[in-house]
Amino acid sequence: MPRSAASERIRLADQAHAADIAVAGRVSDDLRQKWLKAFRTVRAETERRAAPLSPEDQVVQSMPDASPTKWHRAHVTWFFEQFLLRPFAKGYRPFDERFAYLYNSYYVSAGPRQARPQRGLITRPSAAEIGAYRAYVDDAVAELIETAKDMGQLIPIIEIGLHHEQQHQELLLTDILHAFSLNETHPAYDPDWHWPAGDGKRADAGAPIAGIHMVGHHGDGFCFDNEQPSHQVVLRRVRLASSLVTNREWIEFMADGGYTTPTLWLSDGWATVEAQGWNAPGYWRKVGGAWFAMTLGGLRPVDPAKPVCHVSYYEADAFARWSGKDLPTETEWEVAAKSGVLGDAFGMVWQWTRSAYAPYPGYKVAPGALGEYNGKFMVNQIVLRGSSLATPAGHSRPTYRNFFYPSARWQFAGLRLAEYER
Amino acid sequence: MPRSAASERIRLADQAHAADIAVAGRVSDDLRQKWLKAFRTVRAETERRAAPLSPEDQVVQSMPDASPTKWHRAHVTWFFEQFLLRPFAKGYRPFDERFAYLYNSYYVSAGPRQARPQRGLITRPSAAEIGAYRAYVDDAVAELIETAKDMGQLIPIIEIGLHHEQQHQELLLTDILHAFSLNETHPAYDPDWHWPAGDGKRADAGAPIAGIHMVGHHGDGFCFDNEQPSHQVVLRRVRLASSLVTNREWIEFMADGGYTTPTLWLSDGWATVEAQGWNAPGYWRKVGGAWFAMTLGGLRPVDPAKPVCHVSYYEADAFARWSGKDLPTETEWEVAAKSGVLGDAFGMVWQWTRSAYAPYPGYKVAPGALGEYNGKFMVNQIVLRGSSLATPAGHSRPTYRNFFYPSARWQFAGLRLAEYER
Amino acid sequence: MPRSAASERIRLADQAHAADIAVAGRVSDDLRQKWLKAFRTVRAETERRAAPLSPEDQVVQSMPDASPTKWHRAHVTWFFEQFLLRPFAKGYRPFDERFAYLYNSYYVSAGPRQARPQRGLITRPSAAEIGAYRAYVDDAVAELIETAKDMGQLIPIIEIGLHHEQQHQELLLTDILHAFSLNETHPAYDPDWHWPAGDGKRADAGAPIAGIHMVGHHGDGFCFDNEQPSHQVVLRRVRLASSLVTNREWIEFMADGGYTTPTLWLSDGWATVEAQGWNAPGYWRKVGGAWFAMTLGGLRPVDPAKPVCHVSYYEADAFARWSGKDLPTETEWEVAAKSGVLGDAFGMVWQWTRSAYAPYPGYKVAPGALGEYNGKFMVNQIVLRGSSLATPAGHSRPTYRNFFYPSARWQFAGLRLAEYER
Amino acid sequence: MPRSAASERIRLADQAHAADIAVAGRVSDDLRQKWLKAFRTVRAETERRAAPLSPEDQVVQSMPDASPTKWHRAHVTWFFEQFLLRPFAKGYRPFDERFAYLYNSYYVSAGPRQARPQRGLITRPSAAEIGAYRAYVDDAVAELIETAKDMGQLIPIIEIGLHHEQQHQELLLTDILHAFSLNETHPAYDPDWHWPAGDGKRADAGAPIAGIHMVGHHGDGFCFDNEQPSHQVVLRRVRLASSLVTNREWIEFMADGGYTTPTLWLSDGWATVEAQGWNAPGYWRKVGGAWFAMTLGGLRPVDPAKPVCHVSYYEADAFARWSGKDLPTETEWEVAAKSGVLGDAFGMVWQWTRSAYAPYPGYKVAPGALGEYNGKFMVNQIVLRGSSLATPAGHSRPTYRNFFYPSARWQFAGLRLAEYER
Repeated sequence: MPRSAASERIRLADQAHAADIAVAGRVSDDLRQKWLKAFRTVRAETERRAAPLSPEDQVVQSMPDASPTKWHRAHVTWFFEQFLLRPFAKGYRPFDERFAYLYNSYYVSAGPRQARPQRGLITRPSAAEIGAYRAYVDDAVAELIETAKDMGQLIPIIEIGLHHEQQHQELLLTDILHAFSLNETHPAYDPDWHWPAGDGKRADAGAPIAGIHMVGHHGDGFCFDNEQPSHQVVLRRVRLASSLVTNREWIEFMADGGYTTPTLWLSDGWATVEAQGWNAPGYWRKVGGAWFAMTLGGLRPVDPAKPVCHVSYYEADAFARWSGKDLPTETEWEVAAKSGVLGDAFGMVWQWTRSAYAPYPGYKVAPGALGEYNGKFMVNQIVLRGSSLATPAGHSRPTYRNFFYPSARWQFAGLRLAEYER
Repeated sequence: MPRSAASERIRLADQAHAADIAVAGRVSDDLRQKWLKAFRTVRAETERRAAPLSPEDQVVQSMPDASPTKWHRAHVTWFFEQFLLRPFAKGYRPFDERFAYLYNSYYVSAGPRQARPQRGLITRPSAAEIGAYRAYVDDAVAELIETAKDMGQLIPIIEIGLHHEQQHQELLLTDILHAFSLNETHPAYDPDWHWPAGDGKRADAGAPIAGIHMVGHHGDGFCFDNEQPSHQVVLRRVRLASSLVTNREWIEFMADGGYTTPTLWLSDGWATVEAQGWNAPGYWRKVGGAWFAMTLGGLRPVDPAKPVCHVSYYEADAFARWSGKDLPTETEWEVAAKSGVLGDAFGMVWQWTRSAYAPYPGYKVAPGALGEYNGKFMVNQIVLRGSSLATPAGHSRPTYRNFFYPSARWQFAGLRLAEYER
Repeated sequence: MPRSAASERIRLADQAHAADIAVAGRVSDDLRQKWLKAFRTVRAETERRAAPLSPEDQVVQSMPDASPTKWHRAHVTWFFEQFLLRPFAKGYRPFDERFAYLYNSYYVSAGPRQARPQRGLITRPSAAEIGAYRAYVDDAVAELIETAKDMGQLIPIIEIGLHHEQQHQELLLTDILHAFSLNETHPAYDPDWHWPAGDGKRADAGAPIAGIHMVGHHGDGFCFDNEQPSHQVVLRRVRLASSLVTNREWIEFMADGGYTTPTLWLSDGWATVEAQGWNAPGYWRKVGGAWFAMTLGGLRPVDPAKPVCHVSYYEADAFARWSGKDLPTETEWEVAAKSGVLGDAFGMVWQWTRSAYAPYPGYKVAPGALGEYNGKFMVNQIVLRGSSLATPAGHSRPTYRNFFYPSARWQFAGLRLAEYER
Repeated sequence: MPRSAASERIRLADQAHAADIAVAGRVSDDLRQKWLKAFRTVRAETERRAAPLSPEDQVVQSMPDASPTKWHRAHVTWFFEQFLLRPFAKGYRPFDERFAYLYNSYYVSAGPRQARPQRGLITRPSAAEIGAYRAYVDDAVAELIETAKDMGQLIPIIEIGLHHEQQHQELLLTDILHAFSLNETHPAYDPDWHWPAGDGKRADAGAPIAGIHMVGHHGDGFCFDNEQPSHQVVLRRVRLASSLVTNREWIEFMADGGYTTPTLWLSDGWATVEAQGWNAPGYWRKVGGAWFAMTLGGLRPVDPAKPVCHVSYYEADAFARWSGKDLPTETEWEVAAKSGVLGDAFGMVWQWTRSAYAPYPGYKVAPGALGEYNGKFMVNQIVLRGSSLATPAGHSRPTYRNFFYPSARWQFAGLRLAEYER
């Protein structure tokens, strides 16, 4: 069973918060309140996302790459228990010692754990018990924040824990959508769901970018360690489309034999098309001659004006070849995004680049437990940039590197094209 | 995906109830009350068995061969809706048309259906909705029984529906035990569960049986069609053990290299041992040097005096070879059971015979919808006789033929030995 | 990888040759010459069958169930080396010690061995070297027969070795035909090959059989141990067709939706049809609108008058159901064959019965090396009776029990029907 | 079945031979002789490499990724027939029309073809017939070269055909070594085989490289299209080891728990280690307590001083992590190789880089049949640089990009380390 990195990417901030930490010796109330608020805000968002789901909805795992809602809720909580409360909260008693087994994801150094494809079998503890677990840990964390003498060592852990939880918030939605897509009653996660409006940027033609640029994260603010070291790259002259590829364009691709023409595809991509019987994006189905797609709002007619979504890298690559253009590299995307020529870069769909996920030059895995596995997913996966409608507020930035296997379709992933100048 | 017949055996009574049906022209209130009571009794037993299980417990499917509790509850209800109410209850409106897709098991003529391995994804409808579905159908069936002008054509369908539901009652327990066995918190279905006492029959030596005997069902009472035609067989002189093989004996077998000696095993059996890593009966695990087994009462120490349980045919066959004896054929078992020399023939563990599941000579598949698939499981499976602690009251008889693949271990299955005279 | 018993059934004669052995104390030249001639005749037949095949032909293994020609030639030779020469030929030096690894089939007690699916990788030793190996062993066996003081213990081993080699002679043909069937140049094993004429027996209607009969081998002559103990059976009144089912009838079955009607099939059979995409017997293909079949003579038009061949048990069973009849049990077949009412019982195609392969009542595995695995294939397989065009002369008898998995199609296997009287 | 690109990479020279082609209008004898000689030299090398192999050796396919020797010999010949003779040799009659099916590799536009994993079943045509096929095509090509009026359009096809054939020459050796490695008699391809001496370059410390550099092919000489467009890159300051990693170092890695420490591995790499049971490089085995390795010279003791070979990317990456260093990127390797600081860059083992195989910026697939699939392998594979002991003379250059899946071990692949300056 291929182990997906999807829900499990933990990355360290290896610089951060000099200001916060500098003052940690004499911790101000403001600092405590700032972090307490951040903690409560993120924790509440998880529960808000889980709220429409019944205990039954929360227990299922529809494929090995996805995880149950209940598991997400418990795992991110275990993360705080394991890495924050156990080491730093004096006298802390774990809520239930067995949870370390059930809700550890892949941390070898944190002990054995439930096999990933069997996460959907944990009917007990119940969703209500996980709610109690969350409250228990929330209280303990709040108390720790309010009473800790030295916040300097706590802040990086709290921060990584919150960003970690935000990643799972997105996965919570992508995973339940996958489960619902397999239910012939087409449950709606949110009957009122609709596509975001988009940012309306539509430059007639993206300005070309070229030359030497700095990429990767530097300066203030949180980032994961895979966004560093920042470094220079040389770009060939290229224009990135200001718009995302739409369903209308995708339907043209389909009508033109996109899914039946092997010469449009990467060899591994074509093998996947044949093995999986793909003939349209993920979650699409014909109903009475028209295309519908399973969405967070249930089964809906495909809107030609919206960005195509739930396509794999293989499909994105084939579409680019069919269109006579290319997918951008991740660095091209980042430079273009920083220069502001991309419409809907954030908040609609993640955008496949044609860059394999790899360490930046000079990248080193951070020492210690949280860094144990930082680089271990840097093979066989492809970088996506931007963010999606499911990404929580405050979790997007131009240097962010998302990554999935090239066959993955259950994320909110689409594409924009690039064109090199000749 | 091997399709298991386990939960889906439907067989027709091709003779039955001459008396009941003869009077059906002028239906007596007694007759109505008799069937109404039978219906309510069986239906209540299903809910009684499901009651200790939470909605979350009821939704999971721990392997393709097993089904969720909720699915069992709904499927047996759909059976009455599909085969009794739709054809015979005038003006009946199905509870929800989509349930035919979700809860049909394998009846091709009844339309398309949920893929078997994905039964565990049906989080909606909820367990509560299935409760409402059951009540709705119960009411409609009760009304039908109370008002039908001609009970003659209804009784065979009601009867098969009740026996069908009883089969699922047993499977409900075997399937949830399998799911719980994969949960490291070892949930107990019933904390007060214990082994039945047994019937206490312990003849010093079973009397040998031999000669010509009639086997199969004849005379009054319900039977499935695979128990017929009754026919004569010639038996070689053989003694069947009066006792079931116990855990104590099985531990001796293990200690003597039972699971590591290929010459004790059928070729396919040894391949299974190696592929699955079997070294003890199903659900056994070593805890602190002692053997424990997952039971309906949770994880319990293995009691040496109790019958061995959760062994496959391959294991039963290897044990028999190791002991220098044989498994009985199904006809030997039946003749011995009828002559009364078997202790604990019923109500403890099903007993593997060495007979492949096959039609009796002259067996013909019954025409019509319910008989559509009667004989279709008669290959690659092995007959078990008797009944188990999970078999509902009234569902056992000496001619009953249970059957599973030779590798199956999640049923309450054990063995007794036979010895041929030389 | 399912391990096939196909090429590896070794069975002991547990009675045999009282006369021969009685005089063994003073061994006559006639006795020596009789066995020497038998040995040379069988050994020559293997080489005659291999002769049309190039070294390249002889090395390939086209599926795990099949073995290379070279492997067959070497394995049957190793059998004599292992079980006859090493124990009994004083001073015998094995041809090459490494051959025990390469050409042992599954005898655990004879040491480790080449993995079955990798038999096709043994390019060295070459076919010519195997020829030398055969000659070397032939000389040693001849010398042993000519000089042994006591033939009594040798004769059973020689005899089993010869019958073992005859089984491989048939497999040599079935296996190379499978390999050639996958070669788009359609090589002919024998360009002059044609179907045997058949025995011409065509009783208008087979006489019915019924009542108590003795089945299994008794009296003189060689048999494998699975043909014993002989025992009585009771037969329901049944008529067996005097003719084999023909291609013409099979084409009618196909035209009537035979391969597309799930209700005609066993559940496991239908799953196989879907998984394998079967729509006609093995080796059939449409060429220019007409059915052709790969045969020992290359790709040939299907002759409607000939027996259908290369069908699995699943297909034979579906055909019987479609025809409203049954496959006979193996005992019905044997009783009918002994009473002479079957046309083409031998020498055309093996005939699927509906009997699972199981031990006869009272069967015991013989002690010692050759009996090590006698009963180990007695599960999951179906008995075929008769013999085929590929069966060597002298290897057929009414009590012979052949057996294969119900999905196997590469043998020369067809069927005849049975009809029970009502 | 994952389709390997291994034996099938065809790339176009998109510039080439301006001088040769400029004069093609008035073709000189020198030009004809130059190309005729090149053609004959390469063609002879293939036969030289096949010569030690028997017809039996030449037919086997030991895994889907490998191809039989006979297939290599025929496929490269078909390439000339398909792309040179059919279009350009007037009146050319193909040797055998069926060979297009048997020996096409993956060119969809050239028609259907033998399934890749079944190449080992083509026992006919024989190795001798393939010899005749080669001679027939050689004659036709020679005649074409000697008589063509316009060499301008022929030269690029001949040239690509020869480079294509050279790639298969290397694969011929890697594939037969894999087949022999599975034969317990340990055949030697060449009993006199030994490791090359190496080039003796051993700078005490490689000079660091850094800054802006041009990479990719430009200027004269043949290259594949994946080596272009040449373009600038910015390098972080890094030192590449002057030496290849040796067996001695690898044994230290093993002794230090290299194969049993999950934190050293990429996640996908560790899953492969566990699934495959790797505990040493490919072809290594313990014999009497010492490490031996299967080589072209048969089973030989592992020489600690030689470069480690037959390691996958996953292993190379784990070794680098264990050593606290990195694998170089492919551009770092190329820049270092061009500046001359690498010992044994060529002719020993291919060197894994940490670069995923991807198109260079601005790369476009060439139009036409030969370019049909140029870019289709640019996903999921890793670039190797340098060349190996099996690479034919004249087939190495600093810009050459070899590529395999990260789990591949049957190539002559090792590694050198890189170290970033802090």
